[in-house]
Parts: sequence; structure tokens; C-alpha cells
Amino acid sequence: MSAGRFLQTLSGTRFPTPPIWLMRQAGRYLPEYRAIRATTRSFLEFCYTPDKAVEVTLQPVRRFGLDAAIIFSDILVVPDGLGQRVWFEEGEGPKLEALTDPADFGRLSRARLTDTLAPVYTAIRQARAALPAETALLGFAGAPFTLACYMIEGGGSRDFAKVKLWAYRHPESFGLLVDLLVEAVIDHLTAQVEAGADAVQLFDSWAGILPEEQLFAWSLEPMVRIAHGLRTRHPKVPIIAFPRAVGPAILMYRRPDAFTALSLDTGIGAHWAARELQPHVCVQGNLDPLMLVAGGTALERETRRILDKLGQGPFVFNLGHGVVPQTPPEHVAQLVEIVRGWTPSTS
Amino acid sequence: MSAGRFLQTLSGTRFPTPPIWLMRQAGRYLPEYRAIRATTRSFLEFCYTPDKAVEVTLQPVRRFGLDAAIIFSDILVVPDGLGQRVWFEEGEGPKLEALTDPADFGRLSRARLTDTLAPVYTAIRQARAALPAETALLGFAGAPFTLACYMIEGGGSRDFAKVKLWAYRHPESFGLLVDLLVEAVIDHLTAQVEAGADAVQLFDSWAGILPEEQLFAWSLEPMVRIAHGLRTRHPKVPIIAFPRAVGPAILMYRRPDAFTALSLDTGIGAHWAARELQPHVCVQGNLDPLMLVAGGTALERETRRILDKLGQGPFVFNLGHGVVPQTPPEHVAQLVEIVRGWTPSTS
Repeated sequence: MSAGRFLQTLSGTRFPTPPIWLMRQAGRYLPEYRAIRATTRSFLEFCYTPDKAVEVTLQPVRRFGLDAAIIFSDILVVPDGLGQRVWFEEGEGPKLEALTDPADFGRLSRARLTDTLAPVYTAIRQARAALPAETALLGFAGAPFTLACYMIEGGGSRDFAKVKLWAYRHPESFGLLVDLLVEAVIDHLTAQVEAGADAVQLFDSWAGILPEEQLFAWSLEPMVRIAHGLRTRHPKVPIIAFPRAVGPAILMYRRPDAFTALSLDTGIGAHWAARELQPHVCVQGNLDPLMLVAGGTALERETRRILDKLGQGPFVFNLGHGVVPQTPPEHVAQLVEIVRGWTPSTS
Repeated sequence: MSAGRFLQTLSGTRFPTPPIWLMRQAGRYLPEYRAIRATTRSFLEFCYTPDKAVEVTLQPVRRFGLDAAIIFSDILVVPDGLGQRVWFEEGEGPKLEALTDPADFGRLSRARLTDTLAPVYTAIRQARAALPAETALLGFAGAPFTLACYMIEGGGSRDFAKVKLWAYRHPESFGLLVDLLVEAVIDHLTAQVEAGADAVQLFDSWAGILPEEQLFAWSLEPMVRIAHGLRTRHPKVPIIAFPRAVGPAILMYRRPDAFTALSLDTGIGAHWAARELQPHVCVQGNLDPLMLVAGGTALERETRRILDKLGQGPFVFNLGHGVVPQTPPEHVAQLVEIVRGWTPSTS
């Protein structure tokens, strides 16, 4: 049985064209997703129903023959598993009963985390069994800083003033929350790998709001601890880090002891990444999701530009952020065709 | 008469401590600003009332003895001057009657721009006369891409899908809008310099949403054209470019033919900037505005960290983004004191 192009690429094998999967490839842009999503009112309940989570995980692989699936779930299952109230309001994004005081941490506990999240692991077992052998299955988690953002802000935010002020003014108590999240994420990723995830991705979606010293303390260092923690039990599992929008500070994340690959947001230029990152680490990315909405010659030109710059080194094709709901599914098919048909420009 | 520390720094002179001013230093965090702002209902009318605009321009200089003032105005006076309807709703940010079709461009015209914006130039004349000789007065404008974002989205946006899709799918018509904005911004900056602005800053606040090839076409290239256009009439005027959140692509903006200094957002690490940017160009920045809210030892530590990294090269101290309304004014005083009292760490 072959490990498939995605896992082999993460292990250092090179293919004429890179493997491809897309962040948020299972989602609202697919009519078959919307049909099954409509059968459950609560988003978290949907995530915790293995049959449905498995079905939507498989949908994009069936349609587009992607090289990897990512288990359908949400990064906020971890706060939920820790006992914080999390809910999703239609068209408004996630809401959490915000932590407002270090004393609130006392209400959080890892004791029941993997029990609460058992449906995620069941879904992974089922999805792994259902997927073709050559298609990798990714598990994932939010990185501690991004989870802390949601947990302290009580949802998304424009300026993240609450979480930043807490981290800046009270680094000791903020550090306690981050420590708890490091352990919780290790638990969650370990359970996903044990259920059959072939690789994992750590999303630090809000890392980019931190200046560099804070970024080191609250994003990079906790992510490295998670990688080391997961590897004590699963020494070979590939780990992809996605510190989104951190700019040139992504240089700090070149840590082969921790991360097998770095996922790049659209703001990291492919030329720069080829020079500064690829000699050290496999990279993944980074087409603008709006290019996938635009389609046509714009999509073709931009895809080839990225391939010409990054396709010669260790590379997984992906977006710079998740697929957006208004994406025409036929543009995804077009993208896969461009990537699979690519040959390096001679110019 | 001395040109003052700010202008001399931009001309290459070095001082033991850098000059300091702050983006959005005139604003809602000051009680004296709120008092005068309350006397006019419409925000644009407030901007177009020279006595009031001058008064709020001077307030932070009086309080904190900053090295530069920036004329109180708004980047959206340019779309207003071009004939697009612009208004501000309390607590909601700016609104514009969105351009939805290339035909809408026909309703825009530069013909009355500098007449409509005459109150801005009057305010600059008055502010320049009222300021101490050693305090520089900055004029400013939004860069074409950022203006186009507001003009096409009809305000702020979460994903900027409309402006991106327009630029990606219809680069020819988007280019016509950008061309018009280049000329309009040259007109507006030229008039500001002729009214007495000692230097200007170009804000490309939304540049960071563009992938590199698009960034070159729609952010950098138009900004360079503006710089060259302004310099044909005012060859020596210092121009500061602020391409916000562009990550490593800020390397493209090292263009001494166009920009005297680069303003850095908080995401550009000081260490990296000292190595990659400062040998080529004066830099300005980049304290997190939330550090200024936090105050205390966090503010002191982070300010000294930036000074130690950047204070040895050509440098203007500033924030990485504008002062936020919840900033305690006494923290600004504390910041100025730290910057003025700084001596390089011996470690």
C-alpha cells in the first residue's frame, strides 16, 4: 500500500506535480454539503455526528480527487471539550461565554476533553476506513493563541483588545491559560492520530496580530511544545504549522524539530518563500481564495505563477486561507486540472 | 530656523534619540478632541471646518511635544472630492455609495477636487502658521488601492471580495479607476505641500490583502507614480509610504527614488527591519497600539526593545497603526518620556 503523494511529499519525495488539498474544502460552496448541513440545526452537534462529519469530509475528495482530506470539525471543539460554553449563531460566527478573569480558568478542565470529543475520533476512524489508501487524512487543532483569542474575546474581534491587553498586562495568568491549551491540544491531536489521522495541521489563525516578542512567547513556543508533546507518542507523524499573517516572522517557524511543513497565507510571496523557507522546510499554499472565486484566466495565471516559483521544491498546493462560500465548485475542478497538468515554464 | 528633528531625520541626520509622532495622534482618546468633535454632527463637515481641524491637529503637539503634527483630515476626502457620496455613521465606520460597474467611473471627476478640498489646504496653512518652527506638519492621502477598496466595497469589508474580484476579473477597468486615483492623489498631495505641509504620508491600509503580483500592480506601482508625480513639482518633499500588512513584500517598497521612509505595521519585526530595510531606507514604526493601552512595564519593555533594534539606524518612532480610542493619554506621555530618555542597551 502506497502512502500517497501527500504523505510522500511531506517525507521528502518529489513528484512532477505537487499534491493538492484545500483548506475548508468541505464546506458551504458545495451543494451536497449544504444539503446534509441542513439536516442539523446546531453546528457543534453537526460536528459531533460522525456519519455526517464523515460524509462531508469525503465529498470534496469524491468530486475533485484531492490528495488529502481533512476531518470535518472545528477548532472550537477544544474550548467546548474544556467546559467553556461555545455556540454558533447563523451568519454571525462563533460565540463563547468569554473568560474575563483568571478565576474563570478554574472552570476549565482537561478531564473530560477526549470523552467530549470522542465523536471526532469516531469520525476519523470511519473516514480513514472509507478513504482510498492513497488519500491522506488530516486531523487538526487550533493553536493555543488563536484558541485564547476566541476564549477571551468571546468570539471573533476587530482589534482583539481584550486578549492582547490580558497577555500584555498579565503574562503570568495568560501563560497559565496557554499551558492548559498546550496540554489540551496535545491530548486532542494524539487522539486524532490514534484514531487514524495520517498527519495534523495546527492553525494559528490570529498569530499575525502579535508583535515579534509576543509572537515567539504565545504562538511559536506553544506550537513547538505541542509538536514535541505529540511526537513523544507518535515520533513520525507529520505536523503542518499555519501561523497566519505573521509576515517575515514566519522565518522563526523554520523548526524542523517541530514542523514538517509550513502553510503560507496569501501575503507570503512565493518568490520570497522559495528563497527563505523552502531550503529548510516543505511549504504549503498559498493561492488567494478569491482567485478561486474569480476563475478563468486570472486563476490560471496566478496558479501557474505559484507553481513556477514553488513547484521545484518541497511543496503542497493549497490556498492561503479557506475556500469561501461563494466559490463555484467548477473552479476547484479547474484548479486541480491546472495543478495536475502543470509543467515548469521555460522562461 | 531649524527644520526640526523629524525633517532632519528624513534627510539623513542622526540624533541620540529618534523623533516621535503617532498615527491618529489627534483623536477620540483625547478629551479635548471629544469636546470639539461634539460641536459638529457630520464627520466630513468637521474635517472641512478649518478652525476645528487646526485645533485638533495642534492638541496632541501641545500636550506631548511631539516632533510632528499630521493634519486632521480623512483619506476619504478624495472619493468625496471626486464626486462619490461619502458619509460616516456613528460607530459604524465610513459608508460610500459603492461603485458597482465601470460605467460608475464616469460619474467621478477630478475637475472640482481641489476646490472641494480647499478647506483642507486652508487648515494646513493655518496649522503650519500656528505650529512651532521645529514641529513638522504632515499632509497625507490614501493610496489608490485602499481608496478603491472603500469605493467599490462601499465601506470597510471582512473579505474585500468585491474589489478583489473586480481587480482579478477586469484588470483593464480596475486600472482605469487606479489611474484616476493616481492623478487625484497627486493633485491632493501637491495642494497640501503648496499649502505648507512639510512632508506627506501615503496610507495603503488594505494593501496586505493582495498577493504579490497584484500588490506590485495595484499598490506599489501606483504609489511610485504618485511619488514621481508629486516630485515633478516638489522635488525635495519627503514621502513616507505605509503599505500596511504586506509582510515580506515590503521589500519591494525599498524604492529610494520614490519613498523617503517606510512606515512599518506591528507585524514587521524590528530585528528583520533593521537588517533588510534600514540599510536602504529610513523606517518609521511600529509599536502595537494596544501596548500603548496596556502601559506600565509592558509598554516600557516593548518600546525599549524596538528602540534597541531600530534606534541605531535612520528611524522615526511611531505606532504600527493608529492610536485607539481607549488609550489613556498619560500612556502617550509615558511613551514620549521613554523614547526621549532612551540610551542604547549595553547588552
